[in-house]
Amino acid sequence: MRITEAVVTPVAMKDPPLRNVNGVHQPFALRAVVQLRTDDGLVGLGETHGGKAVLDELRAAAPALVGLDPFDLNGLARVAGVRARGAFEVACWDLQGHATGRPVVDLLGGRVRDAVPYSGYLFFKYAGDDGWGEALTAEGIVDQARRMVDRYGFRSLKLKGGVLPAMSEVEVVLALREAFPDHPLRIDPNTGWTMDTSVQVAGRLAGTLEYLEDPVAGIPAMAELASKTEIPLATNMCVTAFEHLPPAVAAGAVQVVLADHHYWGGLRASLELAAVCRTFGLGLSMHSNSHLGISLAAMTHLAAAVPELTYACDTHYPYTIEDIVAPLSFVDGALPVPDGPGLGVMLDEDALARLAEQYDTCGFDTRDDVTPMRAIDPQWTPELPRW
Amino acid sequence: MRITEAVVTPVAMKDPPLRNVNGVHQPFALRAVVQLRTDDGLVGLGETHGGKAVLDELRAAAPALVGLDPFDLNGLARVAGVRARGAFEVACWDLQGHATGRPVVDLLGGRVRDAVPYSGYLFFKYAGDDGWGEALTAEGIVDQARRMVDRYGFRSLKLKGGVLPAMSEVEVVLALREAFPDHPLRIDPNTGWTMDTSVQVAGRLAGTLEYLEDPVAGIPAMAELASKTEIPLATNMCVTAFEHLPPAVAAGAVQVVLADHHYWGGLRASLELAAVCRTFGLGLSMHSNSHLGISLAAMTHLAAAVPELTYACDTHYPYTIEDIVAPLSFVDGALPVPDGPGLGVMLDEDALARLAEQYDTCGFDTRDDVTPMRAIDPQWTPELPRW
Repeated sequence: MRITEAVVTPVAMKDPPLRNVNGVHQPFALRAVVQLRTDDGLVGLGETHGGKAVLDELRAAAPALVGLDPFDLNGLARVAGVRARGAFEVACWDLQGHATGRPVVDLLGGRVRDAVPYSGYLFFKYAGDDGWGEALTAEGIVDQARRMVDRYGFRSLKLKGGVLPAMSEVEVVLALREAFPDHPLRIDPNTGWTMDTSVQVAGRLAGTLEYLEDPVAGIPAMAELASKTEIPLATNMCVTAFEHLPPAVAAGAVQVVLADHHYWGGLRASLELAAVCRTFGLGLSMHSNSHLGISLAAMTHLAAAVPELTYACDTHYPYTIEDIVAPLSFVDGALPVPDGPGLGVMLDEDALARLAEQYDTCGFDTRDDVTPMRAIDPQWTPELPRW
Repeated sequence: MRITEAVVTPVAMKDPPLRNVNGVHQPFALRAVVQLRTDDGLVGLGETHGGKAVLDELRAAAPALVGLDPFDLNGLARVAGVRARGAFEVACWDLQGHATGRPVVDLLGGRVRDAVPYSGYLFFKYAGDDGWGEALTAEGIVDQARRMVDRYGFRSLKLKGGVLPAMSEVEVVLALREAFPDHPLRIDPNTGWTMDTSVQVAGRLAGTLEYLEDPVAGIPAMAELASKTEIPLATNMCVTAFEHLPPAVAAGAVQVVLADHHYWGGLRASLELAAVCRTFGLGLSMHSNSHLGISLAAMTHLAAAVPELTYACDTHYPYTIEDIVAPLSFVDGALPVPDGPGLGVMLDEDALARLAEQYDTCGFDTRDDVTPMRAIDPQWTPELPRW
């Protein structure tokens, strides 16, 4: 089995006006969809971040994939950089699954769980044509959480923070705790806080959070904060590649690494990350960006095969308004592993064409949360820490 | 595909009287061969250490394998401990290969090399019915090395040390250097030396050795020695499980880890070890015990899939007098990856029966290098360090 064609399709999907420390989501989130075709007529699917920089990497690597055996992940690593591999490698696993009649989870070592728990991802947001309404206060967030829990059954609840003054966000977390006494809680201000603020927040929320994600920037600052709180610190910002692990381990900077196959180099690299975390006593959870169903399927097959992934994984999928595969459904807060073979998702060519056209017409080719925020607040600046 | 039967067969293979710091090899080396049969008529092969303790573990795990999908390595890990997994997991990969029509190397990520370089393993030894003759002096070892190089084309040469006084072994290494100016050299006294001796040896052999293996015992002593020499230190004794890696990394105790799928938990665990070594800047080589062709095939598929395995792997195979698969042949110091599917080796049932009978009649069920040494030297004691 050899790859005969690697097709890269940039897409833009409608995205709600979700707030974060940098500003607000644009009306469309950019993604890239890859399709690998083989000489025996199979098609493998992958998905990753969109935008010009990633697209350039995907398109640069694509021609070198022709002739490659989809089982040859070492060969793929020789021709595709880490980010391109995050998309193409998933498509190779999908092909391996189709070729062997196996769901991807089987090829990753077998399922340790039949359904993968996800967290309810809570965002401060403006009203939009997205069914979620405005949420800019504690009441709004608790209401959003209530709907997340009622609709999907999520257990862990994660608040994207860094939006309100930190002590106001503490009040939001405490309101969530009151409304959901038994749901594990997380907050992620994306390095929007100073050290002093972070220490204060940690003091207020000790015993309340299952982990505190990226309050401050960089391994040394995270290590300093870790020495001052018993709340486990999580990151998808200061440990985003294997080379960050030795200094993070040496400094004791983080207790939970948020895996993300899109930028760690794929599913196999994620299994390797899990092995490093297990070996060095680090917890493992999973990070998310706005994404479509292909990524969700890949995340689910991966998480189903990793015993150490005991934290609920993050996902933006409840905010995904339009998809290019049949929508995947959460049951009791978890996504059942899609039936194989491969990823177990089938591409809707018409939907892909529509989202591809949307990409061509949306008016931008790079994610930028600052410009739309400036349309609301002309004084807005992306400088951090903000609080 | 489900496993219907797990058969464990203890075998004894003729073994030359090879010397080491503990004494001398018994006339037979003990191994265990496992066969996994499936409901679709496939058979997967594995091999590991023999002797009562391992056999007990294999036999205790065997019944729990019935009903398992050979792709479900996570399921295997739930029912088999690390050592039992080292054998059964290889048999699962062999089955996966047969089921998919793929050589195991493909399922491990694809070949980064078509043939795996092995080292010429040099032993002080007594004369025996093994074709190698006596080697108890520098001349004998150089002669042995010459035959290793001429017959098999090995590049790296490894001397099993700890047998003669350390400074005499230094002279043997220097004689090898003179005879083979371009061959990488190693010596492994199996923790037979004191710290002072090790420092002295390292002083004499700096610039001569590619690495120095287990001169002293334990992570703290290896770390102390590492601070006193620029020769990379290698180990298969103080880092033999994942839990040893954090203290070894923190102390800077070793520069090269010698992988061994038999006791690290199989091929997948070995890939994980490789990932940890890559992440933390440790070198990777491969350890060997006396073994048959099934183990050699498994080592070769694994090593062919690991980019970081740039050191030649150790093997006792040139001393293997009788095998239970068709003998594998080195070409230019390397073993071509056996053609698949699976491990690419076929069991000779008659040979297996003969070696199994040999196990029943050899008179011992536990490796013991001390007793046969005492038959030669009644004062022999296994106390270390010896020199």
